[in-house]
Amino acid sequence: MKEQYLMLTAFFFNPQGDNRMSWRYPSAAGKEIYSLDYYKKLAQAAEGACLDAIFLADHVGIWDSYPSNITHYANSRLEPITLLSALSAVTSKIGLLSTISASFSEPYNLARALASLDHLSNGRSGWNVVTSGMKEEAMNYGRDETIEHANRYQRAEEYIRLAKSLWDSWEDEALVMDKASGIFANKDLVHHVDHNGDFFKVRGPLNVPRPVQGHPIIIQAGGSEDGRNLAAKHADLNFALLRSIKEGILYREDFDRRLAKFGREPSSLKILPGILPIVTDSKDELAEKQALLENLVPEQVGIDLVSSWVGMDLSGYPLDGPIPELPEETNFNGQRTNLVKIKQYKSEGLTLKEVARIVSSAGSAPTVGGNAKEIADQLEEWFKVRAADGFALMFPTIPEDWMRFMKEVMPELQRRGLVRKEYGPGTLRDRLNLPRPVNQFAAK
Amino acid sequence: MKEQYLMLTAFFFNPQGDNRMSWRYPSAAGKEIYSLDYYKKLAQAAEGACLDAIFLADHVGIWDSYPSNITHYANSRLEPITLLSALSAVTSKIGLLSTISASFSEPYNLARALASLDHLSNGRSGWNVVTSGMKEEAMNYGRDETIEHANRYQRAEEYIRLAKSLWDSWEDEALVMDKASGIFANKDLVHHVDHNGDFFKVRGPLNVPRPVQGHPIIIQAGGSEDGRNLAAKHADLNFALLRSIKEGILYREDFDRRLAKFGREPSSLKILPGILPIVTDSKDELAEKQALLENLVPEQVGIDLVSSWVGMDLSGYPLDGPIPELPEETNFNGQRTNLVKIKQYKSEGLTLKEVARIVSSAGSAPTVGGNAKEIADQLEEWFKVRAADGFALMFPTIPEDWMRFMKEVMPELQRRGLVRKEYGPGTLRDRLNLPRPVNQFAAK
Repeated sequence: MKEQYLMLTAFFFNPQGDNRMSWRYPSAAGKEIYSLDYYKKLAQAAEGACLDAIFLADHVGIWDSYPSNITHYANSRLEPITLLSALSAVTSKIGLLSTISASFSEPYNLARALASLDHLSNGRSGWNVVTSGMKEEAMNYGRDETIEHANRYQRAEEYIRLAKSLWDSWEDEALVMDKASGIFANKDLVHHVDHNGDFFKVRGPLNVPRPVQGHPIIIQAGGSEDGRNLAAKHADLNFALLRSIKEGILYREDFDRRLAKFGREPSSLKILPGILPIVTDSKDELAEKQALLENLVPEQVGIDLVSSWVGMDLSGYPLDGPIPELPEETNFNGQRTNLVKIKQYKSEGLTLKEVARIVSSAGSAPTVGGNAKEIADQLEEWFKVRAADGFALMFPTIPEDWMRFMKEVMPELQRRGLVRKEYGPGTLRDRLNLPRPVNQFAAK
Repeated sequence: MKEQYLMLTAFFFNPQGDNRMSWRYPSAAGKEIYSLDYYKKLAQAAEGACLDAIFLADHVGIWDSYPSNITHYANSRLEPITLLSALSAVTSKIGLLSTISASFSEPYNLARALASLDHLSNGRSGWNVVTSGMKEEAMNYGRDETIEHANRYQRAEEYIRLAKSLWDSWEDEALVMDKASGIFANKDLVHHVDHNGDFFKVRGPLNVPRPVQGHPIIIQAGGSEDGRNLAAKHADLNFALLRSIKEGILYREDFDRRLAKFGREPSSLKILPGILPIVTDSKDELAEKQALLENLVPEQVGIDLVSSWVGMDLSGYPLDGPIPELPEETNFNGQRTNLVKIKQYKSEGLTLKEVARIVSSAGSAPTVGGNAKEIADQLEEWFKVRAADGFALMFPTIPEDWMRFMKEVMPELQRRGLVRKEYGPGTLRDRLNLPRPVNQFAAK
């Protein structure tokens, strides 16, 4: 059996870091976040440290229902597929994982773009399947309201199946390209998909040859029932928000049961909790930095964010009082994982102000701070007890935390044999010990 | 007034050249057409020669209604936006023009991708707006048949207006990014587009700042009435199939009249006929190469192609007989420009076999062959009499014709002062002397 490494991906939504107001951090970049050079340096540093992948979050809209947002919050950014395609040209080994909405894109276009990126990058692409729960997103696609939650997941499930069929529509051996006979392709190995489902009707074949990896890596990031089942059926990776090792162990056990239902081995799905790594030389430096980060966030941004997560305007409630009664989860038509998190904070008795602070500065992932050795200890502990197969590194500040992690923590993890020292040959899928999917059209 | 150069774009659909069976040419590339390296070399050679732009054609499907097609014809390829994004990272001055369907994509997604590519490339992106007339394309997007011709163009017109609004939704000065005050953007300069038209409903704003060029360059490539009017209203460039200088002069006059109706100057729209450049040392070499190219194409491919263009299966008709009666243009729901071309050949008395040869080896663009001086003479003549503002160079073979053109013809054109010797500063739009669009939301 091949050695299993701790899988590490460098994740970001805000180009200057996962703190909501990271753009205000003293060493944060300015308008260069709209240029390739900024990302090229980050990607090359991550590749230099043998990180597994870069992982881009995304929304298909701007969160602007509350007025503080556009004013204060870094909300315009580059589009992930174009950015990762550009990065494919200036890197050669690191994985390139992109969030793309299954609710607001055409399956043929998505399957093409990812297949093409997989060829351009020689087998390094991945798709984080999201269903786009923000009303502001739905309104950019002809709707007044979000698609109903259950429908979003049914649709996403059909979408993934369809994308996989399209990727399989050219079998691996379909390309002949024999100049003498004039035979370009073996037409018996090129297939219509003839998909006619509840949500999509697509004939195929795709007009890109089968991706180098067979299928790009599939990632799923929702923690709801619907989301977990989708992941257990289709995903190679699951991005999770877990607050403790104990939560991680229970989450893994839950997934192993779900995977078994679909006839899948536990090793076929890796779980990557999000963490906020802050590398510092001392405890004092860490405390100072965390205080600085918290102070970057205008109070109103935090409150508006909580309001958005729970689907209620909380501006009128006392800051030092409790969170008011929240909507039922079962019929909630937003991002249920976020609602559940706020309910947890409410049940712990936190005030509106406290919750606003947590949510706005850190999301709900745990901070893993300290020097290289201390951080490595924590990651190793999660990994060794099977609370995590790896992590989505949500650096609070970029480039500072990103660069320090690559320079200080990665060598420590390499020294311990927890991560690779060099990439070696093959595709991203090969390096993650994930099997190359069998082509559904191949002769049995 | 700034000097007007002859504008040159290197155009391709088939990665090995515009001859339908260019993949069989002795020096044609094999499976490396699915890797970035192949295009990187081509793009860097073109940039080294100061070409204005690379121009990628596209279909959103595979032409496979006739069985010869998948067997013989290079029909799977990389997707243009991912490929051009990757090329943006390994070039710095050359324009990156992408064909994208206005019939089968979401306006918010297209506007984002192009805006993002414009930032990544520092102002070098362009969009060739097509309406996707092939039935095989429609069937990949939930339909049984092509969208009706007039509807496709009404939809495209609304689509372009909407994309322009989205690009304008962040005004140029909207980004403040003042760390001290915490003000990221001036919200008065960020706008909902609130588009509610016949085909689309989109709220906005876009989640990418305004493109570096204001709007990416808009290209329109259809020669029908509907297509020309769309170009006269919205496009910066028109890609045309014209067979002679005389046709070019009439076409230009026609466009000047149409432009005037929309209050536009003739100089605001450049017309680029497609030509097939073949650089050779002697007339004998040219004749030999043309014969070789014709012989690459299996007869059935040509006949099936003509069948596809006219919407009738012509397989049963005598090869040496005339083209049979063809459908009326007015209600024809395919690519009308192609139908009209075949009707021209029919009226000239060509046999089915002859038309199949022309269509399959050369499309309908004229060959411009000879040595560097002879080719430069021909391009200069078109340009000087205003039959063309430049050309889409549809090299019959790639890399051979592409590389010879860059190495031999470009220096000759530079010597004559017809094209630039160095790029100079600014965006693609600047270099083409096209005005930066005024933002529709800017205070008057």
